[in-house]
Amino acid sequence: MAEVIPGNAVVGQSGGPTAVINQSLVGVIEAAAEHEAIQTLYGARNGVRGIIQERFLELTGLDKDLLERVAATPAAALGSTRDKPDEEYCRKILDVFAKRNVRYFFYIGGNDSADAAKIIRDLARASDYDLRVIHIPKTIDNDLRVTDHCPGYGSAAKFVISALVGDDRDNASLPGVKIDVIMGRHAGWLTASGLLARQDAGDGPHLIYVPERRVSPDQFVEDVAEVYGRIGRCLVAVSEGIEDTDGVPWGEKLATTVDRDSHGNVQLSGSGALGDRLAELVKTKVSPKLGGKTLRVRADTFGYLQRSFAGFASPVDQKEARRAGRTAVAYAMRGARDCSVAFRRRPGEKYGISCFRAKLADVARETKPLPPEYVNERGNGIHDSFRAYVAPLVGTLPATGTLG
Amino acid sequence: MAEVIPGNAVVGQSGGPTAVINQSLVGVIEAAAEHEAIQTLYGARNGVRGIIQERFLELTGLDKDLLERVAATPAAALGSTRDKPDEEYCRKILDVFAKRNVRYFFYIGGNDSADAAKIIRDLARASDYDLRVIHIPKTIDNDLRVTDHCPGYGSAAKFVISALVGDDRDNASLPGVKIDVIMGRHAGWLTASGLLARQDAGDGPHLIYVPERRVSPDQFVEDVAEVYGRIGRCLVAVSEGIEDTDGVPWGEKLATTVDRDSHGNVQLSGSGALGDRLAELVKTKVSPKLGGKTLRVRADTFGYLQRSFAGFASPVDQKEARRAGRTAVAYAMRGARDCSVAFRRRPGEKYGISCFRAKLADVARETKPLPPEYVNERGNGIHDSFRAYVAPLVGTLPATGTLG
Repeated sequence: MAEVIPGNAVVGQSGGPTAVINQSLVGVIEAAAEHEAIQTLYGARNGVRGIIQERFLELTGLDKDLLERVAATPAAALGSTRDKPDEEYCRKILDVFAKRNVRYFFYIGGNDSADAAKIIRDLARASDYDLRVIHIPKTIDNDLRVTDHCPGYGSAAKFVISALVGDDRDNASLPGVKIDVIMGRHAGWLTASGLLARQDAGDGPHLIYVPERRVSPDQFVEDVAEVYGRIGRCLVAVSEGIEDTDGVPWGEKLATTVDRDSHGNVQLSGSGALGDRLAELVKTKVSPKLGGKTLRVRADTFGYLQRSFAGFASPVDQKEARRAGRTAVAYAMRGARDCSVAFRRRPGEKYGISCFRAKLADVARETKPLPPEYVNERGNGIHDSFRAYVAPLVGTLPATGTLG
Repeated sequence: MAEVIPGNAVVGQSGGPTAVINQSLVGVIEAAAEHEAIQTLYGARNGVRGIIQERFLELTGLDKDLLERVAATPAAALGSTRDKPDEEYCRKILDVFAKRNVRYFFYIGGNDSADAAKIIRDLARASDYDLRVIHIPKTIDNDLRVTDHCPGYGSAAKFVISALVGDDRDNASLPGVKIDVIMGRHAGWLTASGLLARQDAGDGPHLIYVPERRVSPDQFVEDVAEVYGRIGRCLVAVSEGIEDTDGVPWGEKLATTVDRDSHGNVQLSGSGALGDRLAELVKTKVSPKLGGKTLRVRADTFGYLQRSFAGFASPVDQKEARRAGRTAVAYAMRGARDCSVAFRRRPGEKYGISCFRAKLADVARETKPLPPEYVNERGNGIHDSFRAYVAPLVGTLPATGTLG
């Protein structure tokens, strides 16, 4: 085990915010204060960008009440960044670290952040600079490798499930076709969690589409017509990144030639674009399959609310995110040179996790898709086996009751 | 005071669902069970439509636990309807009532439902049929006349505020322009509630636009440029029904000639359309005002989640909605022939309401806009005086904390 050397520490946050990313930050702040080896803990404003610009905040002697409020606040309290630093960028980071005698770097983020952490670690080694680099996972997409799940996912899933529970009751009370577009460009973990909104037979979402399984818009039309024909309504949960059988995203496929912005460019990125296009598709293609019936069709795109809605985080997710932050400091104090904090489920019936060290290289760059065994053969639903995976992460869900 | 005559009762739900409309339903069910004059309480499926189709559910002897779960479930447990019955339609309703000896009709809905209730009441009087008709208010739009506020509004406002609190932190952590489109085609009550997301100086929403004050898209561009130029980010809350100075809705005004559906019709109703158009407007018009700076611009449309999100209702709203249902039965039992249940605030510092009877004619048809004194002169903000109106209705809001 490597020796712990005295010095300063930096903590930063990166990528799209989550409802619990500040829990991990506060975990680092709390644990760092318990170790004399960490002299001053600096918070880097806007992640790596704040480091090279030397925009730091001293995170010492903060009031405990304030820290609890910060922990409960969604989005990155230090500010975040979309910068993906290359070697040159990381060299500047290392220069700042050396200048300020920073010996510990805690970076809270996704796979890109793990990659940045790895580059910085490699440069430090090459120049014989003693630096401990610990990556703390966060992402609502739940697509990091090695770990059982990511802090941030449980809260986003709780939001999505609660939205779908309510929207399904809404759809039952005023029957029609409702399409809900859920975050996840490449990973369907969040959309798949919508399965838990189905509490009784007949509950929606009746169709769930994830990017891991390619499906044609034609099949979507058939699926909606089948469900509507059978039960007189249909609630659809679809990942924003859903692709046609040829790999082209539905959003792009369904863009008509007149779907252009004021410069004449085809518009693909509008927040409501995919939902509106699918609603249009249902109106024009599903209706004729149902004898020309006029359908009530609506679409919603859950958008940023999934990652930043306030006051509704999963308590389990909050606790685990805090623990991930504390564990990162513990690993550094126990001499870890570099790693990413990872979770595994403890064996036994009762849910619980243990933390372990994952290699940065195993977490960086690549992502982890939803395993194919969770998706049904037709690619329009999620198997019940997925419930056991998600349920403990979201905590108590709203209990509903129906009449008659 | 008119005599109470024994007979059956019907309860129905109408219009767009809310998070607490079932609280009012359960209030009626509970209170009706306490009165012998009400022999059988029938729930009409899908409001007035279920009455003429004679689709009823007996609401007697229901388990208390089930009722509590139903009360906590968003959207109309009996099903809702968009039917706006005319006199002929109402005559059919009265025939069904006479056939089934229905002497009490409780109708939970908005101003259209109050209108239907009034037509039915008038027909009953004309034919000398003894029928008590009580309207129970519900709407997230909060636009019913007479009453201080409407059951359903507090929960929708709590959702909107919590979404904006989180989204503002999101916007602060990854600075840019964020536009949130909020429900309200003609009334800005819900959008105005977003003011409460502003907990500290500098917090968003920095701009709030409501349909009660016409504003040009050009002014919107200037406003966003001013805020962004001053603080480096901007969060906008805008009602879906916002209108240009000539009364044309922004959504229509900003539709470009190429914004057409597959039939070549101009698309106005897409759920994300207004948000996407405003985002495009900011990219093309605000950026040049800031020296050509590339702006990070995003838009979200909160959509149905505002009215049906599960497990997040305002406790005050839940309690008041239940009370409105119970009070409706009490009014009928005390001999009221017809009225709408209304709330007034009790004098004194501590928030509390009293119920009173409003005339159906005063609640029907017309709506109540946000009073002009709450809107600032430029039409891009809400005065702090509005806080005292909304705060008691939404209950405890998420406490947040910021660093540095």
